[in-house]
Amino acid sequence: MTLATEVLAVDRDRLWGRLMEMATVAATANGGSNRQALSDDDAAGRALFGGWAQAAGCTAETDEIGNLFVRRPGTDPEAAPILIGSHLDTQPTGGRFDGVYGVLGGLEVIERLNDLDLEIPNPIELAVWTNEEGSRFQYSMMGSAVWAGKLGLQQARDLTDVDGISVAAELDRLGWNGTRPARPSDHVAAFELHIEQGPILEAEQVQIGVVTGVQGLRWFTIELGGFPAHAGPTPMAGRKDPAMAMAAVVTEVYRAVAAKGEWARATFAQFNSTPVSPNTIPETLTCTLDIRHPDGGVLDEMEKEMRAIVAARCDDIGVTHRVTLQNDSAPVHFADEVVDAVERSAQAVGLSNRRMISGAGHDACYVAMHCPTAMIFVPCEAGLSHNEAENITAEQAANGAAVLLGAVRRIASV
Amino acid sequence: MTLATEVLAVDRDRLWGRLMEMATVAATANGGSNRQALSDDDAAGRALFGGWAQAAGCTAETDEIGNLFVRRPGTDPEAAPILIGSHLDTQPTGGRFDGVYGVLGGLEVIERLNDLDLEIPNPIELAVWTNEEGSRFQYSMMGSAVWAGKLGLQQARDLTDVDGISVAAELDRLGWNGTRPARPSDHVAAFELHIEQGPILEAEQVQIGVVTGVQGLRWFTIELGGFPAHAGPTPMAGRKDPAMAMAAVVTEVYRAVAAKGEWARATFAQFNSTPVSPNTIPETLTCTLDIRHPDGGVLDEMEKEMRAIVAARCDDIGVTHRVTLQNDSAPVHFADEVVDAVERSAQAVGLSNRRMISGAGHDACYVAMHCPTAMIFVPCEAGLSHNEAENITAEQAANGAAVLLGAVRRIASV
Repeated sequence: MTLATEVLAVDRDRLWGRLMEMATVAATANGGSNRQALSDDDAAGRALFGGWAQAAGCTAETDEIGNLFVRRPGTDPEAAPILIGSHLDTQPTGGRFDGVYGVLGGLEVIERLNDLDLEIPNPIELAVWTNEEGSRFQYSMMGSAVWAGKLGLQQARDLTDVDGISVAAELDRLGWNGTRPARPSDHVAAFELHIEQGPILEAEQVQIGVVTGVQGLRWFTIELGGFPAHAGPTPMAGRKDPAMAMAAVVTEVYRAVAAKGEWARATFAQFNSTPVSPNTIPETLTCTLDIRHPDGGVLDEMEKEMRAIVAARCDDIGVTHRVTLQNDSAPVHFADEVVDAVERSAQAVGLSNRRMISGAGHDACYVAMHCPTAMIFVPCEAGLSHNEAENITAEQAANGAAVLLGAVRRIASV
Repeated sequence: MTLATEVLAVDRDRLWGRLMEMATVAATANGGSNRQALSDDDAAGRALFGGWAQAAGCTAETDEIGNLFVRRPGTDPEAAPILIGSHLDTQPTGGRFDGVYGVLGGLEVIERLNDLDLEIPNPIELAVWTNEEGSRFQYSMMGSAVWAGKLGLQQARDLTDVDGISVAAELDRLGWNGTRPARPSDHVAAFELHIEQGPILEAEQVQIGVVTGVQGLRWFTIELGGFPAHAGPTPMAGRKDPAMAMAAVVTEVYRAVAAKGEWARATFAQFNSTPVSPNTIPETLTCTLDIRHPDGGVLDEMEKEMRAIVAARCDDIGVTHRVTLQNDSAPVHFADEVVDAVERSAQAVGLSNRRMISGAGHDACYVAMHCPTAMIFVPCEAGLSHNEAENITAEQAANGAAVLLGAVRRIASV
């Protein structure tokens, strides 16, 4: 039996203990975490993690945008490092696992290799990306975006929070202004371990999600304009009523999207109308629309159909319309060989698994622009995430880390 | 030929001239008026009107809530007065005719009788009701509501504007704290002349609306509660999405209301959702609903059907719902003999006319609680009202005043 097929268990209690200890840093009253990016709380989380990594014999480096890389050396000085990464910052009312699990799961892989004195040719670099959440400084996956060249370093540094404090000022203050260039190096493969943030694995009672890519998404604002006449004297026929048009648009867009299969998504949100009067037909009615699909061609079709529905339903009743694309993120297709490594590892560990698409964006999307990448999902309770009640079990946490460990070994061929 | 069938013209140019002169008091940049209740501008409008009424030989009295009554004496000391009334206050961006036309049309009736030295047995009382608009002090038709006993005098006096200034303080300041009791006396009949504020007369090219009553109305808030999951990882099936439910509710309520005939109305407005995030299924989605019908029984049916639709569509997809009645105003049925007087007058004057329902509330609703009442409508341009562009022609203004004059004479039998 070669090492590559030998299954190595991880230390479930150590992993779980660390997840729970990290959750005490800036814990919220309702059992969640509030470690917003580049805050003292975020720094406290990193300090706790940094101590564990140092104790595990890792060296540490910070890059220009504050991304932290801790490194376990490999035995082959020529071998390119394997990258594992996620984030420690949270939403303001975030959970205990989103991001954190990927970082501490990666650390568990390093420590388990250490426990077994198992040296591998490739160094392992474990990245803690800066400001993944994009809630305090509004650019999601900021650190990995800069690293990938998707966002300029200066643009990122110039982002400010609601108090006008810049990323640059906080990097300075925290001493996170590293000298390592914030750009890709020579990683042979990359992994991100994450909770699913959706209900599919739990509903299907599948233990591991083998993530083959990330949905493309487009965000739109939809603005309808009506004629604000009096609710009483104005007959129903002939009203230019944006509520009437919006109701038809929402229903028909959902119907059109349902026809695009299991991975198509559409979400209407941020509804607002004027005037603030119960007895006037709205003059404006606006909302946002988020559409997603793993296939860019299908996403194109979805957008085209949506625009046709809005135009037709508004023209029917004389309501004006403006649909504006606000955000366009292309689908990500992960690398076959890294996806395969994850899938084979799950099989070897003996965990039920399925291939799936990530509906949410992750640092792995930007990493995948430069390096063969895949993700591993574990189920989370009721699909709940970005929520203080976010939850997984110690068993689920250990399952994902074991699959990651096996996948890393498959890439390293040990 | 008796006087009762003789048609008397009104002085179109005098009436129009006064409408245009009143429109110079607190004129807005876009051709409207801004004389909010109990403001200096409102007082300036009343002062201008008061001078005209005094010149026309009328006496004036103010009641406890600032309603102004100017009186043309009758010849029979036993005869009860005929009441004509409307208002001079406007919306913040109001038009030149809403309310004003009813007051100055009533004054034109008095002056035309004076021109012809035509004395009638009954006194004519011309009322300028306080704060009909309810925009500065938020109680519509406040003055007539107090007069009718629908709203307590003290409650009305305690109403405050956004700056905390009370009605009582303004009545004091303006000297509108009259001694006449704010309650009904012995009027034999009442009229209100008004622009339609809707598009029906213009669309049908009918010159006079013989108003037989006012729609009953009910205002509701509709609050839907969903499960705020992530727009990406959450499959479409199983979402608890209030936008999906609301779209069905709006469409079905409009369909149900359309089946209730030409006078049924439904208006959804004030849409709002939380959270302010484009990639989260809304946790809450709220709106208001205004339903109207001239028949209280049909209004009951409309409410029942609406509640059933909300419950069914929300239960379908697991969205919570709360429908709260915020305002309930019963339909008003005007008095046959006063409606007949208006209709016969319109016929005598030779103007095309139709019976119709008022979709909007007016002071006449409260007056009708105590006195046989009817209203006269004239067409307005594009049905536009509560808008600086509100418009009628001098001819339309004169038509309505001539019908009012004839109807007053029919009630007085002269």
